Amino acid sequence: MPAILLSIGDELILGQTVDTNAAWLAGRLSGLGIGCVEHRTVPDDLDHIAEVIQQCAEAAKVLIITGGLGPTDDDLTRPALAKAMGVDLTEDPASVEHIASYFKGRGRVMPERNRIQATHPQTSTMIENTCGTAPGIRATLGHCEVFVTPGVPREMKAMFEHEIEPAIQDRAGTARTILTAKLNSFGSGESDIADRLGPLMARDRNPLVGTTVANGYVSVRVRSEHEDPRQAKALLEEALAQAKDKVGPLAFGQNEVALQDVVIALLTEQGKTIAVAESCTGGLISGMLTDVPGSSASVLGGWVTYANEMKAEQLGVPMALIEQHGAVSQQVVEAMASGALEQSGADFALSTSGIAGPGGGSKDKPVGTVWIGMAYREGEAVKAIARLAILPGDREAVRDRSAKCALQLLRLQLMGEDLNQMKWASAP
Amino acid sequence: MPAILLSIGDELILGQTVDTNAAWLAGRLSGLGIGCVEHRTVPDDLDHIAEVIQQCAEAAKVLIITGGLGPTDDDLTRPALAKAMGVDLTEDPASVEHIASYFKGRGRVMPERNRIQATHPQTSTMIENTCGTAPGIRATLGHCEVFVTPGVPREMKAMFEHEIEPAIQDRAGTARTILTAKLNSFGSGESDIADRLGPLMARDRNPLVGTTVANGYVSVRVRSEHEDPRQAKALLEEALAQAKDKVGPLAFGQNEVALQDVVIALLTEQGKTIAVAESCTGGLISGMLTDVPGSSASVLGGWVTYANEMKAEQLGVPMALIEQHGAVSQQVVEAMASGALEQSGADFALSTSGIAGPGGGSKDKPVGTVWIGMAYREGEAVKAIARLAILPGDREAVRDRSAKCALQLLRLQLMGEDLNQMKWASAP
Repeated sequence: MPAILLSIGDELILGQTVDTNAAWLAGRLSGLGIGCVEHRTVPDDLDHIAEVIQQCAEAAKVLIITGGLGPTDDDLTRPALAKAMGVDLTEDPASVEHIASYFKGRGRVMPERNRIQATHPQTSTMIENTCGTAPGIRATLGHCEVFVTPGVPREMKAMFEHEIEPAIQDRAGTARTILTAKLNSFGSGESDIADRLGPLMARDRNPLVGTTVANGYVSVRVRSEHEDPRQAKALLEEALAQAKDKVGPLAFGQNEVALQDVVIALLTEQGKTIAVAESCTGGLISGMLTDVPGSSASVLGGWVTYANEMKAEQLGVPMALIEQHGAVSQQVVEAMASGALEQSGADFALSTSGIAGPGGGSKDKPVGTVWIGMAYREGEAVKAIARLAILPGDREAVRDRSAKCALQLLRLQLMGEDLNQMKWASAP
Repeated sequence: MPAILLSIGDELILGQTVDTNAAWLAGRLSGLGIGCVEHRTVPDDLDHIAEVIQQCAEAAKVLIITGGLGPTDDDLTRPALAKAMGVDLTEDPASVEHIASYFKGRGRVMPERNRIQATHPQTSTMIENTCGTAPGIRATLGHCEVFVTPGVPREMKAMFEHEIEPAIQDRAGTARTILTAKLNSFGSGESDIADRLGPLMARDRNPLVGTTVANGYVSVRVRSEHEDPRQAKALLEEALAQAKDKVGPLAFGQNEVALQDVVIALLTEQGKTIAVAESCTGGLISGMLTDVPGSSASVLGGWVTYANEMKAEQLGVPMALIEQHGAVSQQVVEAMASGALEQSGADFALSTSGIAGPGGGSKDKPVGTVWIGMAYREGEAVKAIARLAILPGDREAVRDRSAKCALQLLRLQLMGEDLNQMKWASAP
């Protein structure tokens, strides 16, 4: 059952906005065994949109359109779909009420121009928007089932899951099942991970195994295909297990699982708490950890000690130590981690101090030099260790990878694994 | 001069990775007056890639290919381009050396499989990779100029700026110039911003003005078109100035400028410092501020006080206050901000406490309820104020918007503007 994804908006055509919806929808469709034959993007032009909708409806059985349902004059998907269908727009009283109550719930009055979001082509039906104002639209155009959602990813996803997926699942029937999964690792390069995978990556295998790098994670991608959905699943699981075995402890989770998800799960499981003392990462580690729902049970809090005075006054790092070794040093990150542990009473503490750039580098400590500290308790004693990472990339990349190095070190520690498995953060 | 963008990778086709390169390249090309006629994405399949390269080279004058230059067996762009060109691959000794020295600079030895990255089709030339291992490729195929870059955005962007842009700029010559810009605002909804813009948004105007929402920012998009590049620029500037005037102080910057960029610029300009005390945002505000290069001159640091004990012990918030009003209250965020100001000696302090969800909501304080505090000095006295935001969306959205509300309040304060202009954070 061929599907086409149609994204609408000048902002996409001109490159002002990245289209994240197409990837998300492609992933969900391939999970249902539905292959995309095309992905098109058109600007905010009524006639152009209407024409492309007609072309797509002729070529596909399922057409998912995202974008152009906002309340402003450049949102033209509703009239364009009506034009393609050869019908007029009509207003849905229930939707007017829904939109008005959405605004009321936020203490605001519905602007008159939002009323247009309650209109839809005659013979089409509305798809409820559980987290925004614009309802979606479901219509039939020739042999094609057309679904329209807002371009806002959160609203699009909710509509896909509540209404579109169940509707097309019924129609997909006997298609081949394509399943995909990712095994994420952090702490070594793509070549090294590929070497570990070896013949698993042969291009003629099913499941097909590949690697991808994104934001410092090296992910093993697995794609299995079979007529029998259970077989497709079994093949996928087997390849994932083999990949996990080959990659070893640097592999931390599957699909959208991030390092912080695993760290919070381990801390929660072991009933342990953490505090963080950050210099060059400036709050990123705390931000990542507290991004996980339920993290408040393990995260006590932390410090961003950008200024040396903050390191000394808030964490008790001796100013003499900073002067002797510099703020970016083994001694200082160890003292920061110990200080955070003692101040907070946490079981573990992480710390960072480094040169994120673009300025501040020197011959001895070039941009990308980052010390990562970890403190933990052994009986009554506080133990602190440090690791050195030399990270490539710009300020954003150095900060992000530093935070991930710290989280991976803590994860290995919580699992009782050898910290030296981290290729990117070496012992002093 | 029509251009085609070709993205290569199973991870894109299957939706495992979002293609950010296409948007970036489309934006840069339209700035050069070059319109994309198509954007295609193909999987990691040698014959398929070779076939599509041939098709694209027939339809376009410029073809930019991204991805498939990694060191592993599923990286097939090099042999596919050679096949499309009808030539063999050859090894470039200088590139072998460049790759080996890249690894050496990071204290590692070049894995043997990276050697393949130094190969390229005969008659093609290499494009230097200033921030990674894989060189790019420049080739001619019929009437089409073909450029190949790695899929890693950082490496692709560096190659575009250093080699591809100068090369195609020469060829673009007399084309129409299309210029685009965005004016970003934060703190009010899209309908309200559209109302303020009024007739500026008519669909038949040049420049064309539209609105887009992304990550809480409502952006006014402007697109001007003219044969004369200077006229295109003048039209763009005029429309931007009009939009800025209509939107008012909630508009904070253009294009990729973020709230934190403006806040750091204002603090630096005024010689002021800041400290942050975060509960529900858990480090995000600090992370945003320290993301800005040079922020260390104004950001002293901060606290993530997730646990109530941390609020009391580190910031001196009276435990009785927390017990009486709850941690999510006007009184507590004001005390957090004052505490952070006094502890750090900073000129300004921001604080947050709220219910990010998914758990923790109640009838009185539903998920999305966030108090934002700000403290500042008036002579010897410390003044603290608070604002209440009721934010829609999931945990990530609530945390992100809370951080942005805090930054926008500080920005308005630094500019001497009325804080009540912030529609999303109201006075108690």
